[in-house]
Amino acid sequence: MTFREDGYRAVDWAADYLERMGELPVLAQVEPGEIRARLPQSPPEQPEPFSAVLRDLDEILLPGITHWQHPRFFAYFAVSSAEPGILAELLAATLNSVAILWRTAPASTELEVTVLDWVAQLVGIPREWHGHIEDTASTSTLAALIAARRATGRNVVVCSEHAHSSVEKDARMLGMEVRKVPADEAFRMRPDALELDDAGVVVATVGTTSSTSVDPVAAIADRCAAAGTWLHVDAAYAGSGMVCPELRWAFEGVDRADSLVVNAHKWMFTPMDCSLIWTSRPDEFRDAFSLVPEYLRTTDEAAFNISEYGPALGRRFRSLKLWAVLRCYGAEGLRSRIREAIRLAALFEGWVREEPGWELCAPRPFSVVCFRTEGSDEENEAILERVNASGEIFISHTKLNGRYMLRLAVGNERTTEEDVRRAWDVLRDLR
Amino acid sequence: MTFREDGYRAVDWAADYLERMGELPVLAQVEPGEIRARLPQSPPEQPEPFSAVLRDLDEILLPGITHWQHPRFFAYFAVSSAEPGILAELLAATLNSVAILWRTAPASTELEVTVLDWVAQLVGIPREWHGHIEDTASTSTLAALIAARRATGRNVVVCSEHAHSSVEKDARMLGMEVRKVPADEAFRMRPDALELDDAGVVVATVGTTSSTSVDPVAAIADRCAAAGTWLHVDAAYAGSGMVCPELRWAFEGVDRADSLVVNAHKWMFTPMDCSLIWTSRPDEFRDAFSLVPEYLRTTDEAAFNISEYGPALGRRFRSLKLWAVLRCYGAEGLRSRIREAIRLAALFEGWVREEPGWELCAPRPFSVVCFRTEGSDEENEAILERVNASGEIFISHTKLNGRYMLRLAVGNERTTEEDVRRAWDVLRDLR
Repeated sequence: MTFREDGYRAVDWAADYLERMGELPVLAQVEPGEIRARLPQSPPEQPEPFSAVLRDLDEILLPGITHWQHPRFFAYFAVSSAEPGILAELLAATLNSVAILWRTAPASTELEVTVLDWVAQLVGIPREWHGHIEDTASTSTLAALIAARRATGRNVVVCSEHAHSSVEKDARMLGMEVRKVPADEAFRMRPDALELDDAGVVVATVGTTSSTSVDPVAAIADRCAAAGTWLHVDAAYAGSGMVCPELRWAFEGVDRADSLVVNAHKWMFTPMDCSLIWTSRPDEFRDAFSLVPEYLRTTDEAAFNISEYGPALGRRFRSLKLWAVLRCYGAEGLRSRIREAIRLAALFEGWVREEPGWELCAPRPFSVVCFRTEGSDEENEAILERVNASGEIFISHTKLNGRYMLRLAVGNERTTEEDVRRAWDVLRDLR
Repeated sequence: MTFREDGYRAVDWAADYLERMGELPVLAQVEPGEIRARLPQSPPEQPEPFSAVLRDLDEILLPGITHWQHPRFFAYFAVSSAEPGILAELLAATLNSVAILWRTAPASTELEVTVLDWVAQLVGIPREWHGHIEDTASTSTLAALIAARRATGRNVVVCSEHAHSSVEKDARMLGMEVRKVPADEAFRMRPDALELDDAGVVVATVGTTSSTSVDPVAAIADRCAAAGTWLHVDAAYAGSGMVCPELRWAFEGVDRADSLVVNAHKWMFTPMDCSLIWTSRPDEFRDAFSLVPEYLRTTDEAAFNISEYGPALGRRFRSLKLWAVLRCYGAEGLRSRIREAIRLAALFEGWVREEPGWELCAPRPFSVVCFRTEGSDEENEAILERVNASGEIFISHTKLNGRYMLRLAVGNERTTEEDVRRAWDVLRDLR
């Protein structure tokens, strides 16, 4: 078989998968170790055809795949790998550009700058900010903490108890101290409770992981400005929503941040991994990350190396998939998909509100609904296990004010009203 | 157009590219800013067809691409994105598995453990080591430094002056101090010069970036064991060579390391990005990186979350491409490609040795030749600029003992003897 023929078969596999995965159990129905036990203990000595890879993908791996593309994946933050983005990943792997320096990948470098500018326009942040792509928000926030510590000389990270766990993990990796600020009744950071004298950086969240609450960034920005503290805004999930003007209230004050992360692989329909980070202080980023050894020096004096603005040296051509999605969806296509996700979440929220025995647990600014039955924590946890084991839907949970609650996250572009209706039916049936 | 039809067109583009890119200039012949100036300043409002993406890839981006897949790419470390790996990236983007936890991606998690075990067998390291995949060696080494600092309580990183720049960059990011140890006449770390009393970690290199020299790991391991210092081995490039038994001398003592990095995206023919890291001390890695918040807790008690062993939470399905390459090439296919790269480098080395006016500058243990003309540094630099501007070949440079020298790195699987011959002809013609 030639590459072309194998490629057609791979595309056929992908097309068939996207057509049929809605019929598969959302959550993989296997036990830990089961997939590994079915794989050979050693690599083959002799080459095998690519068709053997496709066969084993079906026969061995598929039962162990939790289907993130499934229209009834409602756990964590529901995401989509859009078709143009999938094909762009094929092209990126074909080119295998490695953007260690401008010279080694001019198109990758300049397309990355361009699409970050495009997204800046779409979500309403200053175009003069400096943007680039990291793998995940964990890394983007890590980079922000590093730049902030270097710029301020202070070792304390401040965030609310609802900040993503990666903030605490990043701080631990760096040997920084984390101080948690109390939140208000709607799970928003309380700016009046901030103590910033020794704080190097405040991480404010627009769309927290548990409840998608929105920290009051403008008030926090005031406090940070007065204290000389770096303000990093984590909008990994909700940032993509800012393509819709009616959601822009959530970004009030973000234009005064020192750095901002938005994950295009969350709600901008781009395949993993594509975490966008901007900074209004590029010189401080460059100061933290630029180190060009002799073997990487070039004579391209006007050139710009993105590796001097982040942790990694080798950088793959991630901008290509985001470019493909932005081109093939257009701003209008992004907005309509975001609005549909919110419409479906609002529908579900309404059903919960009206149903005796169920309750809503948090405001719903975007497309995630926090809810529970009026039973005990244990009863709610049992419901979660039952509905996930059914394979019909996959949801996740959190705790708010010490109480266990269920989360239904809409965000996959293939999710329809019927899928959300089915989720509600399954939840009530398996209660 | 449907996804299937667009996919066939994307495969056709990829197949045509792989057939014809040998005729394109290796190094992009554009000025900084030229590509960006040809891209629209804003994203489209309305959706465009995928064919428009393919058109602009050809018309706008292609002139700005430095062709890492080109058979006459001899710069840095020459790499290959093998065809099965390219197609596996299409499949990974289609599935869009996000391995934050075992539950969210059992197949991705267990295939990753399996292929790391396979590669451990292929390169001759202990199978009981714990292996996983990071994006680049910068991140793998960052993870090792974090685990080492936490395990030893010491803040000093020791390496030779020939260690990769990422060691110094990672240490700076973490606020660790770097101490450089002198090297011997063959650019190898001098174990007798190690002062380890306050050293948290020694980074030894098997295949340094400038000259591919091999630090004496066994002697360094003795010193580290006596001092309670963590030993991290950076075999990002040369580690893949260990599939050939005749090269295993370079790994003597590596079985006593605390951590090891080998980049499958360098010399194991896997598309960017795929950096393999193993540790003999998984508990210390887990201690450094495990942080499971409430919203990520699951009842899968026997499960194993790779995100607890490294910096990132979200992890894409990188093992799929490595699995595809290992399956479709087999151990024999890896060995024959590694041996051919070394044979070609040795040929080139012989031509330089025999040619008056040219000199070799370092021993050649693998597939990289360091050489120069007997002229001044400036003359050698001018040769580099001329040959790269010709578009015929792309080479890079380094400095050893303060002298400028040229590097020819063989490693692309498509490189033939004719390509290496042509490189030598171009170098002599443009001298």
